[in-house]
Amino acid sequence: MKDLKNLKIAYIGGGSHSWAKNLMVDLAREEAICGTVSLYDIDVKAAESNARIGAFLAERDDVVSKWKYVVANDIEDALTGADVVVISILPGTFDEMESDVHLPEKYGIYQSVGDTTGPGGIVRALRAAPMFAYFAENIKKYCPQSWVINFTNPMTVCTRTLYKVFPQIKAFGCCHEVFGTQDLFKEILKEKRGIDAKREEIEVNVLGVNHFTWLDKVCYKGEDLLPLYREFIEENAEGREGTDKEHWANSSFAQKNKVKFDLFCRYGLIAAAGDRHLAEFCPSDWYLKDPETVRSYGFELTPVSWRKKDLAWRIEVAEKLSSGEKQLDFYRTGEECVRQIKAIFGLGSFLTNVNLPNRGQMPQLPLNAVIETNAYFSGDDVRPVVAGNLPQGVLALVQRICAEQEMVAEAALTGNYELAFQAFLNNPNMPLDIKAARELFDEMLKRTKKYLPYYEAYVKREKA
Amino acid sequence: MKDLKNLKIAYIGGGSHSWAKNLMVDLAREEAICGTVSLYDIDVKAAESNARIGAFLAERDDVVSKWKYVVANDIEDALTGADVVVISILPGTFDEMESDVHLPEKYGIYQSVGDTTGPGGIVRALRAAPMFAYFAENIKKYCPQSWVINFTNPMTVCTRTLYKVFPQIKAFGCCHEVFGTQDLFKEILKEKRGIDAKREEIEVNVLGVNHFTWLDKVCYKGEDLLPLYREFIEENAEGREGTDKEHWANSSFAQKNKVKFDLFCRYGLIAAAGDRHLAEFCPSDWYLKDPETVRSYGFELTPVSWRKKDLAWRIEVAEKLSSGEKQLDFYRTGEECVRQIKAIFGLGSFLTNVNLPNRGQMPQLPLNAVIETNAYFSGDDVRPVVAGNLPQGVLALVQRICAEQEMVAEAALTGNYELAFQAFLNNPNMPLDIKAARELFDEMLKRTKKYLPYYEAYVKREKA
Amino acid sequence: MKDLKNLKIAYIGGGSHSWAKNLMVDLAREEAICGTVSLYDIDVKAAESNARIGAFLAERDDVVSKWKYVVANDIEDALTGADVVVISILPGTFDEMESDVHLPEKYGIYQSVGDTTGPGGIVRALRAAPMFAYFAENIKKYCPQSWVINFTNPMTVCTRTLYKVFPQIKAFGCCHEVFGTQDLFKEILKEKRGIDAKREEIEVNVLGVNHFTWLDKVCYKGEDLLPLYREFIEENAEGREGTDKEHWANSSFAQKNKVKFDLFCRYGLIAAAGDRHLAEFCPSDWYLKDPETVRSYGFELTPVSWRKKDLAWRIEVAEKLSSGEKQLDFYRTGEECVRQIKAIFGLGSFLTNVNLPNRGQMPQLPLNAVIETNAYFSGDDVRPVVAGNLPQGVLALVQRICAEQEMVAEAALTGNYELAFQAFLNNPNMPLDIKAARELFDEMLKRTKKYLPYYEAYVKREKA
Amino acid sequence: MKDLKNLKIAYIGGGSHSWAKNLMVDLAREEAICGTVSLYDIDVKAAESNARIGAFLAERDDVVSKWKYVVANDIEDALTGADVVVISILPGTFDEMESDVHLPEKYGIYQSVGDTTGPGGIVRALRAAPMFAYFAENIKKYCPQSWVINFTNPMTVCTRTLYKVFPQIKAFGCCHEVFGTQDLFKEILKEKRGIDAKREEIEVNVLGVNHFTWLDKVCYKGEDLLPLYREFIEENAEGREGTDKEHWANSSFAQKNKVKFDLFCRYGLIAAAGDRHLAEFCPSDWYLKDPETVRSYGFELTPVSWRKKDLAWRIEVAEKLSSGEKQLDFYRTGEECVRQIKAIFGLGSFLTNVNLPNRGQMPQLPLNAVIETNAYFSGDDVRPVVAGNLPQGVLALVQRICAEQEMVAEAALTGNYELAFQAFLNNPNMPLDIKAARELFDEMLKRTKKYLPYYEAYVKREKA
Repeated sequence: MKDLKNLKIAYIGGGSHSWAKNLMVDLAREEAICGTVSLYDIDVKAAESNARIGAFLAERDDVVSKWKYVVANDIEDALTGADVVVISILPGTFDEMESDVHLPEKYGIYQSVGDTTGPGGIVRALRAAPMFAYFAENIKKYCPQSWVINFTNPMTVCTRTLYKVFPQIKAFGCCHEVFGTQDLFKEILKEKRGIDAKREEIEVNVLGVNHFTWLDKVCYKGEDLLPLYREFIEENAEGREGTDKEHWANSSFAQKNKVKFDLFCRYGLIAAAGDRHLAEFCPSDWYLKDPETVRSYGFELTPVSWRKKDLAWRIEVAEKLSSGEKQLDFYRTGEECVRQIKAIFGLGSFLTNVNLPNRGQMPQLPLNAVIETNAYFSGDDVRPVVAGNLPQGVLALVQRICAEQEMVAEAALTGNYELAFQAFLNNPNMPLDIKAARELFDEMLKRTKKYLPYYEAYVKREKA
Repeated sequence: MKDLKNLKIAYIGGGSHSWAKNLMVDLAREEAICGTVSLYDIDVKAAESNARIGAFLAERDDVVSKWKYVVANDIEDALTGADVVVISILPGTFDEMESDVHLPEKYGIYQSVGDTTGPGGIVRALRAAPMFAYFAENIKKYCPQSWVINFTNPMTVCTRTLYKVFPQIKAFGCCHEVFGTQDLFKEILKEKRGIDAKREEIEVNVLGVNHFTWLDKVCYKGEDLLPLYREFIEENAEGREGTDKEHWANSSFAQKNKVKFDLFCRYGLIAAAGDRHLAEFCPSDWYLKDPETVRSYGFELTPVSWRKKDLAWRIEVAEKLSSGEKQLDFYRTGEECVRQIKAIFGLGSFLTNVNLPNRGQMPQLPLNAVIETNAYFSGDDVRPVVAGNLPQGVLALVQRICAEQEMVAEAALTGNYELAFQAFLNNPNMPLDIKAARELFDEMLKRTKKYLPYYEAYVKREKA
Repeated sequence: MKDLKNLKIAYIGGGSHSWAKNLMVDLAREEAICGTVSLYDIDVKAAESNARIGAFLAERDDVVSKWKYVVANDIEDALTGADVVVISILPGTFDEMESDVHLPEKYGIYQSVGDTTGPGGIVRALRAAPMFAYFAENIKKYCPQSWVINFTNPMTVCTRTLYKVFPQIKAFGCCHEVFGTQDLFKEILKEKRGIDAKREEIEVNVLGVNHFTWLDKVCYKGEDLLPLYREFIEENAEGREGTDKEHWANSSFAQKNKVKFDLFCRYGLIAAAGDRHLAEFCPSDWYLKDPETVRSYGFELTPVSWRKKDLAWRIEVAEKLSSGEKQLDFYRTGEECVRQIKAIFGLGSFLTNVNLPNRGQMPQLPLNAVIETNAYFSGDDVRPVVAGNLPQGVLALVQRICAEQEMVAEAALTGNYELAFQAFLNNPNMPLDIKAARELFDEMLKRTKKYLPYYEAYVKREKA
Repeated sequence: MKDLKNLKIAYIGGGSHSWAKNLMVDLAREEAICGTVSLYDIDVKAAESNARIGAFLAERDDVVSKWKYVVANDIEDALTGADVVVISILPGTFDEMESDVHLPEKYGIYQSVGDTTGPGGIVRALRAAPMFAYFAENIKKYCPQSWVINFTNPMTVCTRTLYKVFPQIKAFGCCHEVFGTQDLFKEILKEKRGIDAKREEIEVNVLGVNHFTWLDKVCYKGEDLLPLYREFIEENAEGREGTDKEHWANSSFAQKNKVKFDLFCRYGLIAAAGDRHLAEFCPSDWYLKDPETVRSYGFELTPVSWRKKDLAWRIEVAEKLSSGEKQLDFYRTGEECVRQIKAIFGLGSFLTNVNLPNRGQMPQLPLNAVIETNAYFSGDDVRPVVAGNLPQGVLALVQRICAEQEMVAEAALTGNYELAFQAFLNNPNMPLDIKAARELFDEMLKRTKKYLPYYEAYVKREKA
């Protein structure tokens, strides 16, 4: 039997000091499990900084579980013997992301996030998938029985890549966007009924793909909340900002849920991700036509310059933490990672939403496509529940993104960038004709070429 | 919001004084819900007897929830306003069952139970399905939103009929056979590790159809129990009786799990039902060839005469209970029905195995076939988890029974008894040639004809 | 055995004097079959005119098969005893079509045909489907064993409706758009190889839905013609008009195949319908953004005024033919209807493309969706061949239209026009926001209301 | 374009002088194609003998197409440049087949053929699949674009192996069993209607797997022949031997079609293979219980001693032919191989039944399973038609054999003979318990061990 006081977690990435810190906080407060976290980052300084923060933690009295944080020599060192692997990387740097997001603007294409779909998301996936292929190969070699948790975007293509390269991998992808919608329902319950519910009490059935998830059931203590939601939308025709500032997505990136409400008016179904993500999966005429349209729907085009500033600030904080100048605050992270790990090791089964290959949970979508639904976590098992069917109108939008993601994953791994260009042309946020689109695509690839293993061959073929 | 102190449960059947009593005991001890149970049975005396037992219960001090038990005037009265409908009937009487089970013996066909498959199970289904069609029509009319729980065998055909007649019905079927295998694992854990586990802690993944269910995962606190099981089988080559006498199936019907163990040797997979049921789904050469073979596998051919005696005894007890001569004992029923009802009304989500139409939970089996897998019970929702795939060898056996059940359900509802005869000929426990098989089939139908709405037409067609 | 000299064909519609004339010409020249054509049209005059034209034909010496043309009293009279039913109607009049096609132009929405998809196609389908429901009910009643051939647009929704209402119907839909692409290949073979091929010798594999069909194989005497096509496109960057004027679609409606070529550049697959149709299935940015874009792709927005003029001219011709002033010219029709009828009655099996419910021929698309692929015609049988898979990029476009058609068929038959509005909003040629789209939708419905059985209820609900 | 006067056919096997001779005769009489046949056989003498027979043929005046027959040096020589590869081998010798067929008789298991399923068929497949893996690897290497025609049994497992090893292979399997049933219908038409039909005019829809094929449509010139067949069976309750002696299967192996008729009585569907094959797919109680039962159904258990004698005789004839002592007779072979080759090279498309991976032609069966249905042969294309669904009763039998074949193919290629033993235990002709079955299985493997690449490892594992 597994010794739960001596687990090994391999943490790949973490240089952004965001997800890693969340995990540290949650591990420190959970007494049922203990062990070592092996930190692996191509930015060695970031790994060292995290290790020092971890060391300070272990000395504190208010910590119920003292984990050992070590910097791995290499990926073999990190993975060997790992029970759990957490992957949370930035594919490339914010310079590449700047090109992903802002170069298309010169062609009149606006993206609110640019990390999942659209021109930016597609090119980011071409960069990220080869990295995930590398992780999968090494996991197969050094810890094939480990559980792998992915936090990296583009979530779907990255997780799909893990399974394409190592089909027996026990991997799933985690994202907290759906939590934001559960929080919105908490607010609705509070406002309209005076009830203080917990997020977990808002039971939902989740269908779709990451960042384009839908709910066809929202229930509180057996009561269907759809009628309440309908009422709330009618009363908030101009949108409504979330008030629960605890959740990072609300505090940092303003949005008024107007896209979410508009989609409800279209389909009678609740879109579960934030507006900035939802908009990117729809025809550009709807929400992303131009900055005015974006503004009229009450959300923002997040500039990458903001992300750069934010990162600088986070590094500054990390330096203080790792030098002992500052203590880590035990905030409520809102994440479920530690609870998931516990369930997998036999400490409390539960249901939550994650990204997994389709094995029947959504019979309308292709088998093996990575999709997001509820899954039941129990001993050595993460098993999707049957989420059922989407209505035809939403289905058409979801099938499109599934096709795009399959093309892009295939393109990234085989170097068939023509296939990626097909996806690029097919994207709903692509108003250009073939010639202009090719120009943009080529320029975007060029700017990210150092992360593209097949770039030279592509350029050569194109010239021929 | 639903008033949980004022629920209405319609109870159809209950004349056998077995399931009804279990429910009464469990309701009496559950304080979270309360209300009325409306009893409907074609045997009005049985319903009245149950109502009186219920009335005595309500007067007791040691009862935390006082339910009102009333006898319904008719099915409309029972169903109108019902939140939950429980169906637990005997299709026909034990006289018909006697013909189902023992007539084939004259032709050299032996059946260990005869209520699910085989000649007896098929004819029983022809009798039961029209009754369930009648229930479904009335549920559609009087309480279409209610949750319907079926305990009646043949479980699969009965539940399938409910959905065939009223596709929007919210019905599921419950059976405790899988619990027996969880109990066996409790014993193994106790014997080999000295651990006292609870049944719920033995986490299993369930696949198959009722009474022919399989487990491809058995886990205790994150530990895979398969190696232990393999060891246990090697040490118990001659089988091993269960020692936990609390579970009725063990106490009444002796079995040594030798069929279960033999199936494990064949497929490396754990058969989850009791041996008497399992045997009936396999080629007769394996376990049911003749009484000697049966004996060599350590189980019994349950004679219907025993069932008649047992029923007489249960009626005797019921009379004492309903006259106040005796008090109802608050035994541990081992059933989950009340817990399921609570979950549906928002009081505690959980996972258990039930019978539901296939919506993707087993992609190898036809959509809509009623199959048994785990499902997650939550507010107004019973949602199957993806159970995955059976190995090819077991799959072939399960596909056969799915085909049989589909044919029989169709035959029973349309009166196309030729289709039922096809199923009869195809059954693995049917060694006869067409002529002899027809003779047996016709005689069996004749003896149960008063429950067959299309019998006259069948006889007329055959004579023509 | 069927008496092939005494067949009965029921012809529903035919007032446009186009398809009916083609059939008359082909029947007159085919000696293997003979019989009666029963003409049924709500425009009785048109039916009478066709009957007179038929009578003149029967008197001619150069006719090898003398058919009897009679006007049916009613639909019962037309269908009773029919071996074949041909349906070729105009759903509504050109006044309704004018509203379908040109009203959206006021909102900046341009449609090149407007009879299949887009705002116009959707509203036309709402009109047509109830008519086809009526036909299906009567075919079920009066000639359930007959073969039903549909020529009416929207082809897919009309044929789907026949199957939704009478699932056992033996119906298929015929369209000659694919023939046009085979003709283009004939020209390519002639130009580049000096070969005079026959249309039937250009073997193709057809995949998709009507008017949005694709070819992934084009073969002449065992040679793959794709490389030739690629060459041809490179040499004709500015498009190329078809020169074979025999085919009506080429002679009447100019197009340069630039859309077809552009789609080939996108996907490497041959789009098989004409450009005017293809454009309507793609995001409006691509080919239908505005009249300039349309012009730049070398095709026309066919105005309904042209159709009205053309119809007047055809009626004029019909009058001359039916008065004997003019003789019917035995032109080559290019249609396959008579050949299909012969095959069904055992006179020559062959392969051609038709519209049928999906029974596995395209595993990526939903079962029962009406799709267009090759099918093998033989005695009493029209059996689709497995067409295989579309590449992901094209698949996404085809899945979208399948979803639209399913929604619209459902909406038309149940009166759930909200579902049709969902489809309307989801159409790639719909740049409006919900409010403006609703205004347009409501105005379009209003103008066609006399053909909408559920219109009043819709208006009432909306006001409420 | 392919030069049809200069084709290369690689012929693998041919030592039995049966299929090879048929091909030679048919090629000699077909003037549209010409070229070289490269003969490769592990029995070099047999290949040389065939080459000499071919050389004599080329000198004859009555031959319209003069092919060159050469003996290949090795498989590389045979395959390089091949347009078509024909595979017709005996996996092992008749000594191994003797063990396959007759060893089980000692355990009371009777097999009528023993080359497809049952204990004999399973062991034969273990022997054959590694040979086909070798062929597939070499075809991939030396002629990946060639068309591959397999005549070898077990047809399904051999063809499945080709696709498992080289998924892009263009292979299909040919068998003439269905032709025999078409011939039976010719006789019925002759006897009951006085009509002389050609085999090709008996249009059939074929469903199932090789040697267990079914027809749900038999049509002559548009007339459904099922009623005639029903009549014929009633008049021939004791079976009826075929009178058409031209077809080898009828002349050599007596059978009375009583199994075929009995299956029709069970399912109302026409079993299309010969009785000796059909019997082996059914529970042994039905037709193979013991020699008396076999006799009562009017067919024979073909002893392998007969095959040995027959082979000796064929070799004798071949020697005379190859020495010039005797001339090859231009008999009607009844085979379609040359017609298929012509169609593939653009010379006449047509429909016939072949064995192909399931790509949707039978939606009830697993994708990729090799199944037998009609397919349309045209330029560089062999495309299955949608065969539709089997009735549930037959489906259960067919699903079982599909599962067996998948297990055996997997076992043979991976060396997991435990999986093959599972299939062995699951076979309907396996009445033994696990222990006796293991004894038989081990003895059978031992006798064929020189053809089993993983035999030593299996024995070692078992001892451990």
